[in-house]
Amino acid sequence: MSHFQRGDGRAHDALRPVSIQRGFTRHAEGSVLVSFGHTQVLCTASVEEKVPPHKRGSGEGWVTAEYGMLPRATHTRGDREAARGKQSGRTQEIQRLIGRSLRCVFDLAALGERSILIDCDVLQADGGTRTAAITGAYVAAADAVAWLMAQGKLQASPIKDAVAAVSVGIVNGTPLLDLEYTEDSSCDTDMNVVMTGSGGFVELQGTAEGASFSRAEMDALLALADKGIRELVLAQRAALAK
Amino acid sequence: MSHFQRGDGRAHDALRPVSIQRGFTRHAEGSVLVSFGHTQVLCTASVEEKVPPHKRGSGEGWVTAEYGMLPRATHTRGDREAARGKQSGRTQEIQRLIGRSLRCVFDLAALGERSILIDCDVLQADGGTRTAAITGAYVAAADAVAWLMAQGKLQASPIKDAVAAVSVGIVNGTPLLDLEYTEDSSCDTDMNVVMTGSGGFVELQGTAEGASFSRAEMDALLALADKGIRELVLAQRAALAK
Amino acid sequence: MSHFQRGDGRAHDALRPVSIQRGFTRHAEGSVLVSFGHTQVLCTASVEEKVPPHKRGSGEGWVTAEYGMLPRATHTRGDREAARGKQSGRTQEIQRLIGRSLRCVFDLAALGERSILIDCDVLQADGGTRTAAITGAYVAAADAVAWLMAQGKLQASPIKDAVAAVSVGIVNGTPLLDLEYTEDSSCDTDMNVVMTGSGGFVELQGTAEGASFSRAEMDALLALADKGIRELVLAQRAALAK
Amino acid sequence: MSHFQRGDGRAHDALRPVSIQRGFTRHAEGSVLVSFGHTQVLCTASVEEKVPPHKRGSGEGWVTAEYGMLPRATHTRGDREAARGKQSGRTQEIQRLIGRSLRCVFDLAALGERSILIDCDVLQADGGTRTAAITGAYVAAADAVAWLMAQGKLQASPIKDAVAAVSVGIVNGTPLLDLEYTEDSSCDTDMNVVMTGSGGFVELQGTAEGASFSRAEMDALLALADKGIRELVLAQRAALAK
Amino acid sequence: MSHFQRGDGRAHDALRPVSIQRGFTRHAEGSVLVSFGHTQVLCTASVEEKVPPHKRGSGEGWVTAEYGMLPRATHTRGDREAARGKQSGRTQEIQRLIGRSLRCVFDLAALGERSILIDCDVLQADGGTRTAAITGAYVAAADAVAWLMAQGKLQASPIKDAVAAVSVGIVNGTPLLDLEYTEDSSCDTDMNVVMTGSGGFVELQGTAEGASFSRAEMDALLALADKGIRELVLAQRAALAK
Amino acid sequence: MSHFQRGDGRAHDALRPVSIQRGFTRHAEGSVLVSFGHTQVLCTASVEEKVPPHKRGSGEGWVTAEYGMLPRATHTRGDREAARGKQSGRTQEIQRLIGRSLRCVFDLAALGERSILIDCDVLQADGGTRTAAITGAYVAAADAVAWLMAQGKLQASPIKDAVAAVSVGIVNGTPLLDLEYTEDSSCDTDMNVVMTGSGGFVELQGTAEGASFSRAEMDALLALADKGIRELVLAQRAALAK
Repeated sequence: MSHFQRGDGRAHDALRPVSIQRGFTRHAEGSVLVSFGHTQVLCTASVEEKVPPHKRGSGEGWVTAEYGMLPRATHTRGDREAARGKQSGRTQEIQRLIGRSLRCVFDLAALGERSILIDCDVLQADGGTRTAAITGAYVAAADAVAWLMAQGKLQASPIKDAVAAVSVGIVNGTPLLDLEYTEDSSCDTDMNVVMTGSGGFVELQGTAEGASFSRAEMDALLALADKGIRELVLAQRAALAK
Repeated sequence: MSHFQRGDGRAHDALRPVSIQRGFTRHAEGSVLVSFGHTQVLCTASVEEKVPPHKRGSGEGWVTAEYGMLPRATHTRGDREAARGKQSGRTQEIQRLIGRSLRCVFDLAALGERSILIDCDVLQADGGTRTAAITGAYVAAADAVAWLMAQGKLQASPIKDAVAAVSVGIVNGTPLLDLEYTEDSSCDTDMNVVMTGSGGFVELQGTAEGASFSRAEMDALLALADKGIRELVLAQRAALAK
Repeated sequence: MSHFQRGDGRAHDALRPVSIQRGFTRHAEGSVLVSFGHTQVLCTASVEEKVPPHKRGSGEGWVTAEYGMLPRATHTRGDREAARGKQSGRTQEIQRLIGRSLRCVFDLAALGERSILIDCDVLQADGGTRTAAITGAYVAAADAVAWLMAQGKLQASPIKDAVAAVSVGIVNGTPLLDLEYTEDSSCDTDMNVVMTGSGGFVELQGTAEGASFSRAEMDALLALADKGIRELVLAQRAALAK
Repeated sequence: MSHFQRGDGRAHDALRPVSIQRGFTRHAEGSVLVSFGHTQVLCTASVEEKVPPHKRGSGEGWVTAEYGMLPRATHTRGDREAARGKQSGRTQEIQRLIGRSLRCVFDLAALGERSILIDCDVLQADGGTRTAAITGAYVAAADAVAWLMAQGKLQASPIKDAVAAVSVGIVNGTPLLDLEYTEDSSCDTDMNVVMTGSGGFVELQGTAEGASFSRAEMDALLALADKGIRELVLAQRAALAK
Repeated sequence: MSHFQRGDGRAHDALRPVSIQRGFTRHAEGSVLVSFGHTQVLCTASVEEKVPPHKRGSGEGWVTAEYGMLPRATHTRGDREAARGKQSGRTQEIQRLIGRSLRCVFDLAALGERSILIDCDVLQADGGTRTAAITGAYVAAADAVAWLMAQGKLQASPIKDAVAAVSVGIVNGTPLLDLEYTEDSSCDTDMNVVMTGSGGFVELQGTAEGASFSRAEMDALLALADKGIRELVLAQRAALAK
Repeated sequence: MSHFQRGDGRAHDALRPVSIQRGFTRHAEGSVLVSFGHTQVLCTASVEEKVPPHKRGSGEGWVTAEYGMLPRATHTRGDREAARGKQSGRTQEIQRLIGRSLRCVFDLAALGERSILIDCDVLQADGGTRTAAITGAYVAAADAVAWLMAQGKLQASPIKDAVAAVSVGIVNGTPLLDLEYTEDSSCDTDMNVVMTGSGGFVELQGTAEGASFSRAEMDALLALADKGIRELVLAQRAALAK
């Protein structure tokens, strides 16, 4: 069924090589370098013993995320957002997505009135930075929870399930799993799918580029995403088992 | 199948009363007040004979959108973004969504090197402001195109299809069409669907609140959205026929 | 005495048609759409049970205002201030004027330690947006006070008098009442006058455009303003009586 | 008629000691330190051989002003606006007033396509900073024009008349000329008046503090202002004659 | 040894005329106009009975500084930082330097939990504004301490030593003391030296412009700085003795 | 002479282990991960065929730098500067220092009218981030120049000399080379020294913390810096030889 030849010879339903390296930096309670092919994102999880105003006194904790891209993570250097004085709409969209995705698998009451702040910084970009970020952020958050338990601050884990994400899209009529940058730039339809370890949907963001897409195309993309996320959840589990 | 009783007695698959009032203000090339129940959005379309830098010299035009909410459009007064000095992540997310949705039904080459700027300002909010905005913005854009044709600046319309949007969600296990604010606040899953007049998907944004959602739930929501958008496209057509 | 023919055939000392529509939106404690001819301003009054820092513990309340203009309220689309990241000097000047004008007729001690926030958003502009805003804001504030009394939070009204505003100016040597946009753009002298229901001055802002103006011209303008404001106060009273 | 005893023993219709010192700093084309009693404002006029966008190609020049206050010009230290990242509404209001006042006495076509930028920086504040600023700015602008003529860039002066400003107000029922800070803080009505050398009005800004003011009160204030400005124009003339 | 002829005929190891005028403005607890030749900086010291967050509850005080330059202090008018909405990197660098320099001679515990805020505003610039600012700021701070003692708020001075600063540099191979603007613009090496009254180093900032500098050149510059700062400390002492 | 025992058993005049890894990311023309012990900085060099305004038409190129720190590079998470909306004074100071240091070894005319932009992003911080950044930036810049020569855009290298940097300081009376974080936090005097490969000084920034430092102390620190920089230049050379 796949007519489009991928640049790296991958099958249309294959992920790029995935690597999840824990303990990448030493200060954060969780620190993970996640790679989807050439895309590399450093995800750190920081524990803070306070919560934002809307949670104060609620007995519940909070999990949130920030996202950034180093200026030369990309083919052409982009502006440094700190120098420009504001985060782009794209950056804010992505960090809100990461935060929501993580919160969906957390029992915030069980976390207690403390925060886990996830920082996802793209060191190298080749498509799929937000999906790699979510996939790595989960592992960093799990390490932060393990640290809280080791410190005796939590007796049981507030994490209810794993969460991972992958992009899918249609290029020249062919549905593809885990788009790299050149595929992403030329695709007709682009979908980011976030799912739990047990196969539930957490977030779904599909966008037509140029032409609209049909229900049949969506079904094909969701099947690819489901396959990819199962594999990513196995990779997360393997990384956490080390 | 519907166990949840809606506050206003609506059927679970019913839209709120829809009103699309053209010519609401006098200066803009297109000016539409769209209402989905108590949600009221003023959508104006402004024609400018120039394009943003990335389109200069391309021979193609551009369609873009900005979104805002009057401070007291909501139950509790919100900060004025102009006074705070920046647009929230939510605002940017919504205006990017509106812009992409409109561009998807425009032949930008046929528009010529000019821009249509859509302003969607929420006068009163009761859930579904972004879907009402997209639905009204299409009519305002159509009026701006009609103005361009009346002026002799365009011979044929660059609009390829209609576009409309609706929210769907699951409240207490019941899939509902076109959520109002109280439903939106208590829903488990929330999905915004943007489709063309011919039934293709343009944007799909589904978010689990608290618990993930299943494929079966998603299918039920998409069916509701499909029904709702068909009705909205008829309402757009009726408004444009006046 | 009037040599200048007004575009709409109005007498030099005539207001444009005035309309004051209460209850325009449903969430605010006071919500008024005021029109001076084609100029339309939505004025909402929001009650908050707190005061700004400089009033805390004083036992007195506060009344303040914010002003905005929808980007396409005008003939040519203006920048959205929220997107630009700051309010213009003109916007700040106007909102400070509205706030001072309202406070002048309020007994802040009788209001108690709470705030009334007035939002004046221009939906359509054709000259005189600040004077329409003040005139409508008074009615919205009166409705907010009525709401406070109906809630039992206030026994007596802290409003001491009505307040309304009108612009006057000299065009081609002719003093005119209530300038519309084309008159405003070509006037030699422009004056905004704010007066109480009992005829006292609250604010007076006169500006020479190009040539200075004489004491005699000022006297003529003040007489026109006095006449116009008497009529506006009657219109406010009629609206509040409904 | 004057019942209020002024702190410094001044008559109710007397200016504070006025000093206008030209050439206060060396780089600017015009540099004036103006004092109204303890209020001291440094006014510099800078010539630039370009105009803002809205004047390009018009053959006309531009005159504009910026205003600032050193953080400890006042009794209590205020925030530094540069550190806070924005100018206050008050600052913007004042600098717009100064610019309009100066432009009113300039023949912009005769100035040619160049700009005069006036900077008014308050070194010490004791009430009336904006009126001292306008009065000093005129002298600095006159020096910049003299410089342009000395350079052979202008054959004739584009200045049509002098311009000066003074504050007047009612304290405890007594109309006073040229309010100092303690008077300004306790006044019922405050009016800033800008007039030309030949006695025409340029700007008039009257504000009721607490209670509205009557037509008779306004007439008394305008008479005081007229007297004060005549004296200020003489002081300007004397300074320029040195 | 000096081959470079200075514009003003000064010896290579001579300071420009130094003037330190106390009580320049009346509101601040310390107010000093310091001149190094044509460079004039107004330094005010403000006492506040509170400390920044990182010092709260520590029992220690704080000394900090802000720096600014009037737009036309320079040959060509610069942007007003308050209007541009941010302080430049250069401004921040300088104000951090002034703050550190002052703190080095303060016993913060002896100051008690209060702050001294130094504002250094350049009225006229001709090179060496930061070194003049530090030299004047010390005198203003000493006056603020004297005020605190006169008020009975401090029994003993928390100032441990004097502090002053001077620039040195190499122009055309000649080491020079106290560079004026034209020398500063053409120098090969530029060094700002901050020392205490007893001859210890507080800050040292040397920068090569174009070519690196040798150890021998550095030694020559440090000897000049040492000489200059001894003279400046005498000038400070003389000013404080008045 | 060294009485202070360093935490890692290092001699007082020893660098931490230095690692310079070229080609760390794939898109930039130069990409170097430099480590001084646990301090890790990613330095990328980007070539752009344009120059900033002040260099346009000059025939000369430009070399500049930006600096950032990932929020959790440090022991405690710091604010993300992009989210806060501005770069701190410290950040701006450091990036200006890096830029000046690099420019000092570049022949900007030989570079031609193009820019090299250096981005230094701290992945992990343990003291000395600015000195590691300069040392790594030089190698990244050298790689960018090699790329320009390989592309045939430059015939000869515009780099005149190597440049490297190290921190030195006095802790408990002991002069130490290459301070790590805990040493840096407790030091009396802190100096950052930037030198060329041939031993000339480029930048020198010494700061007394608490007590001033003597000339003898400075001499001891400079000797340590000289030794350290010689070793760093060898490490740069070895890295570039691979």
